[in-house]
Amino acid sequence: MTVDQLLSTPLKVVNIGLAGFADDLRRHNVPVVQVDWSPPAKGDPKLAALVAKLNADERVDAANREALARMLKADLVAVDVRPAREVVPRLKERMVLHAGPPVPWERMCGPLRAAVQGACVLEGWAPDLAAAEKLVLSGGIQFGQNHDHDAVGPMAGITTVSMPVFVVENRAFGNRAYVTINEGMGKVMRYGANDAEVLTRLRWFIDKLGPALGAALRQSGGLALKPIVARGLSMGDENHMRNQACSALFLRAIAPLLARVVSDQAELAKMFEFLGNNEMFFLNVAMAMGKAITDPARGIEASSVVTTMARNGTEFGIRVSGTGPEWFAAPSEQPRGVYFPGYTAKDANPDIGDSAIVETIGLGGFAMATAPAVVSAVGGTVGDALNYTRAMYDITVGRSPDWTMPALDFAGVPVGIDIRKVVETGIRPTINTGIAHRLPGIGQVGAGIVNPPFSIFERALAALAAKLGIGA
Amino acid sequence: MTVDQLLSTPLKVVNIGLAGFADDLRRHNVPVVQVDWSPPAKGDPKLAALVAKLNADERVDAANREALARMLKADLVAVDVRPAREVVPRLKERMVLHAGPPVPWERMCGPLRAAVQGACVLEGWAPDLAAAEKLVLSGGIQFGQNHDHDAVGPMAGITTVSMPVFVVENRAFGNRAYVTINEGMGKVMRYGANDAEVLTRLRWFIDKLGPALGAALRQSGGLALKPIVARGLSMGDENHMRNQACSALFLRAIAPLLARVVSDQAELAKMFEFLGNNEMFFLNVAMAMGKAITDPARGIEASSVVTTMARNGTEFGIRVSGTGPEWFAAPSEQPRGVYFPGYTAKDANPDIGDSAIVETIGLGGFAMATAPAVVSAVGGTVGDALNYTRAMYDITVGRSPDWTMPALDFAGVPVGIDIRKVVETGIRPTINTGIAHRLPGIGQVGAGIVNPPFSIFERALAALAAKLGIGA
Repeated sequence: MTVDQLLSTPLKVVNIGLAGFADDLRRHNVPVVQVDWSPPAKGDPKLAALVAKLNADERVDAANREALARMLKADLVAVDVRPAREVVPRLKERMVLHAGPPVPWERMCGPLRAAVQGACVLEGWAPDLAAAEKLVLSGGIQFGQNHDHDAVGPMAGITTVSMPVFVVENRAFGNRAYVTINEGMGKVMRYGANDAEVLTRLRWFIDKLGPALGAALRQSGGLALKPIVARGLSMGDENHMRNQACSALFLRAIAPLLARVVSDQAELAKMFEFLGNNEMFFLNVAMAMGKAITDPARGIEASSVVTTMARNGTEFGIRVSGTGPEWFAAPSEQPRGVYFPGYTAKDANPDIGDSAIVETIGLGGFAMATAPAVVSAVGGTVGDALNYTRAMYDITVGRSPDWTMPALDFAGVPVGIDIRKVVETGIRPTINTGIAHRLPGIGQVGAGIVNPPFSIFERALAALAAKLGIGA
Repeated sequence: MTVDQLLSTPLKVVNIGLAGFADDLRRHNVPVVQVDWSPPAKGDPKLAALVAKLNADERVDAANREALARMLKADLVAVDVRPAREVVPRLKERMVLHAGPPVPWERMCGPLRAAVQGACVLEGWAPDLAAAEKLVLSGGIQFGQNHDHDAVGPMAGITTVSMPVFVVENRAFGNRAYVTINEGMGKVMRYGANDAEVLTRLRWFIDKLGPALGAALRQSGGLALKPIVARGLSMGDENHMRNQACSALFLRAIAPLLARVVSDQAELAKMFEFLGNNEMFFLNVAMAMGKAITDPARGIEASSVVTTMARNGTEFGIRVSGTGPEWFAAPSEQPRGVYFPGYTAKDANPDIGDSAIVETIGLGGFAMATAPAVVSAVGGTVGDALNYTRAMYDITVGRSPDWTMPALDFAGVPVGIDIRKVVETGIRPTINTGIAHRLPGIGQVGAGIVNPPFSIFERALAALAAKLGIGA
């Protein structure tokens, strides 16, 4: 674009900081993109001093280089699909794993409670949803977090023993990660729907689809995932809100394998129809990949790199490499997004799901530049999409050499969120997300963009500093 | 990008006009994109006067609006795959259809001759390639052009009676178009390879894949093609050099249908492997779609819209709506491109194939903005890719409302090449293309960008003016 063209085009605004200005402009029909920003260290001199000390500490830089190196070195292969009871560590009967940091039943949001009840019926632990609630209230169900069981799950993120899970192996480090099969759109358990339609589909996963996918993958010796994501990024997937390319590429890869292991033609056709109609199918696989990438980067002393971002619908929690298994959590925010017809922001549940693991590895909102359709869905332009990704370079440690974005002349996605940079710049991670109805049993009502609460980065920073013997 | 950033970035050049300047810059390692351009009407006052008169003639504008309307109204459905003898009109035994305008055997290029010989062996008209040549020289083979038989074919574009062809129906007008099944990369007949590997694959098309695809499509009631292309454009396909998204989407759609009609599991797996490994599979389908779109726009009196662009490896020919079936042809140029290891421009055959039908409908080089990977393969950037498409808006009648490009903020692809605009601006259509080795039997040696010779637009313009009673 020439300078003349630049000056002759209609006014478009990138608003940095207080959202109120952007809201005013929008009311006057001026296209505007809101970039989250606040003054360095929120204008807090004590916090600024702490950041300065951590910035000057070479232990942190060295540890972050190691964390980034481990993340980039990952070699990811989908090797199997198995019932969770056979593979997920420490998963027990009558145990329900959910997304995000820990949350007691009393504080669980509507869709998470509904999903828990549905899972109890699916597993046969309760005859119906009401009985399931009684069972929970009587203490008959043990809860846990996916992230503590080498697993992840989208939205409510329920994992129980019978559910078939993908097994994703990180061959560079030998660790494995697990995720359930994506249910598609519409009425699905991950959004808190739990009626017969939902349970029937999950039973088909257990009886047919899961075993077939497992047999297909075992027969193949495993399916390399990084090349699929690399290709998907060149085809407009950011692997959170858009997974259509990777889902089609996965189907392409699995089709001959499934054909060899499924002899019932009608059943095989049904599987291809399900996979072909589910453009979010690959999201779960990408999430397990993210978990398998980030787990080896955990527990590196002094590293300020974020290894977990996850939400349970009540709270948003992060974990940081150098602070180990401790969760830093605060109330989840409401996504800013577009709603399906008949729904508004009033219907929205606060941000929920383990899916922010994809942003943790540089995809989703971090790779927005490659998926302008995501931004255009919420009123933005191609330029806005580029700016979302550019902002994420300011809070990350490095770039992926394997995952590049054509629209940024094949620059690598930003990888490794550094809590020092988040606190210093006031730029929070951008997360693309689906929006669940706040009431149980309804499901998805929209999609949008959300940020983690700023305070959890401040608290993680303080904890890291304390561990390193650094005072403000 | 701010103006500061603009001025601080490394020098990159868009050279408009004489290619020599660009060549000089490239020698100094300055990235440069060459935009084909010459002075209005090539600086020829007589030609300029003719263009001015045609520009002022309202009959031409009205006819072009009609041509564009017909092209945009097309409703395209892949309905069947059948042996060519059953469906291609006027196709006879011992007849070989080829790409491009007419060309006698004596003037056929190496890869086209080789493909003709291979087809004679495939059909059993000759026991071997030498005998096939003798058969041709003895007058035992009748030649024809795909375009005169409602068909198209990539590169050599051979169509003979036994070959299975896709049947693409334009339901808005009732016409049908035909194209063979894409053979994949490597040794393939369309690039002039003709050994046992090539013929074995084509026999498998005849015996297995063609009948299965036909049964699958018939069972489905037909597969709508415009939505697949629309989706593919948002996934980086321009449908000439890149068809990976549409090929995967086609596989996704056909998988459950094939599963229902193919009971032999090993055979079905082989079909999915072939389709899955062939990222150019959809090219042929897109070409038949192009033919089905352009045929109803032919023969509109006074229209200066191009309805055919096709090359036979010796000549590049166009046909224009208002001048009817007459070909305007001149020697094919050499593509400017990148070569596979071991090959150089010296090995290249002149431009060949009916595939430029995709540019005729606004895809390929016209949709380059959506496929920066194509330009980056020949040394350009994302900006260059946008500029290729922008230049095509200057020589076309309108834009597609159905086929949009995310990178241009979802602007529609440029549709309907107006020969008046080509002659007036000196901007020739940009065509993305594969490059064949000039010798028989070798195959593809690279890929690049090419233009039609300017003179054929001048001659077509003169013919249209004469038909309309307009003198210079």
